[in-house]
Amino acid sequence: MVQWIEDPISDEETLRIAAPAAGLADSVRDLIDAVIRSEVSADELTSIRGEVDALTKRLRVQQLPGSFGETHGMAGALRAWGNAVIGLRNAIAPPLVNTWHADGTIVGEATLTSAYEGPPGRAHGGVAALLLDQVMGEAAHAAERPGFTARLSLNYRNPTPLGRIRAVAKAEPPAPGEEHKTVVLGTLYSIAADGTATVCVEADGLFILPRAARAKLQSSVEREGM
Amino acid sequence: MVQWIEDPISDEETLRIAAPAAGLADSVRDLIDAVIRSEVSADELTSIRGEVDALTKRLRVQQLPGSFGETHGMAGALRAWGNAVIGLRNAIAPPLVNTWHADGTIVGEATLTSAYEGPPGRAHGGVAALLLDQVMGEAAHAAERPGFTARLSLNYRNPTPLGRIRAVAKAEPPAPGEEHKTVVLGTLYSIAADGTATVCVEADGLFILPRAARAKLQSSVEREGM
Repeated sequence: MVQWIEDPISDEETLRIAAPAAGLADSVRDLIDAVIRSEVSADELTSIRGEVDALTKRLRVQQLPGSFGETHGMAGALRAWGNAVIGLRNAIAPPLVNTWHADGTIVGEATLTSAYEGPPGRAHGGVAALLLDQVMGEAAHAAERPGFTARLSLNYRNPTPLGRIRAVAKAEPPAPGEEHKTVVLGTLYSIAADGTATVCVEADGLFILPRAARAKLQSSVEREGM
Repeated sequence: MVQWIEDPISDEETLRIAAPAAGLADSVRDLIDAVIRSEVSADELTSIRGEVDALTKRLRVQQLPGSFGETHGMAGALRAWGNAVIGLRNAIAPPLVNTWHADGTIVGEATLTSAYEGPPGRAHGGVAALLLDQVMGEAAHAAERPGFTARLSLNYRNPTPLGRIRAVAKAEPPAPGEEHKTVVLGTLYSIAADGTATVCVEADGLFILPRAARAKLQSSVEREGM
């Protein structure tokens, strides 16, 4: 979400590896859904487990020592590959695919599979919070006032069925002299087959940039002409 | 989270399939982490993807038509196997392992891997919300006043590093005549290697049982002597 950290990987390298990595994560998303819903025998589950372990071992032959963000950093939204909500390498992320609009509105789209379930047939209340926190954090960033979540308040208006959702957020103008504090409003919609959007959750949040990070951000903004 | 729905599976059946299914989900959790952190070649990623797809196909030979909760229902906390936070078949769930204490306090423990990352090295702000919503919903249930999340307010006090966390929640006493509305307080702690707990997020939430569900709950409580 906070993305001003320098990324030591070249553009060519990121592009070369991005597609196969994203493809693998997509397949693992499908696997996650199948593990929840499968009715095959206990023996077959155990056999498949052995094969999953073998694949994990092949992936770990060469790997980052820690989490993605710690090691690679992120120079732009498209490189937050480990992110729990938008990360293209992260099978836990639906992923939410966000579009930044010129007026500062962020619109995220995703389809929630069985893996996001809380009450039967519905998205977990915390999943709504997860999606909104991400899109609202990006709205603070789009307003050139990125920060960490300091407060997040969510009002659940209607159940969120599993399936297609849309998360929309936009930052409010800053208070004078308080540019490091950004209030953001967000809404989560359920999208019906005919495209009708129903408000499910309304949120407001406060995003704050810690003092230590402000100087770094400022130099990054000057360098990149953000 | 709301668990009064009848479960058509026998106890023997659930126990027989629970261990291998949970084991497979554990292995897929490890795979998710490896997909994020692997530095193997694009060709190897693509080859592994093909094998993942083949495993998914084997699992889908026989499967539930929809999400877990829709089809099986949940008669107890241990059978919420598809749940996004505690589900033992759900590789997206850390899983949070919750203990219900006699005084109504719920204590959840988990270790957050690279898959839960937001800012580098830290848990995503929305992941904190996801964990707290679950443990707080269970606290409402433990108080015999289960409900759906109506409001969730989170105050982020300190960053949550990836690693070991503890989520604690307890319901407040009900207002007279308002037993279907339950206020719950929750706290997310980071747990250091020496066991020291640091407050990361403080939350309060309101959980409401919809009118239509109240009669069903009442009959279930009478039948099961909950």
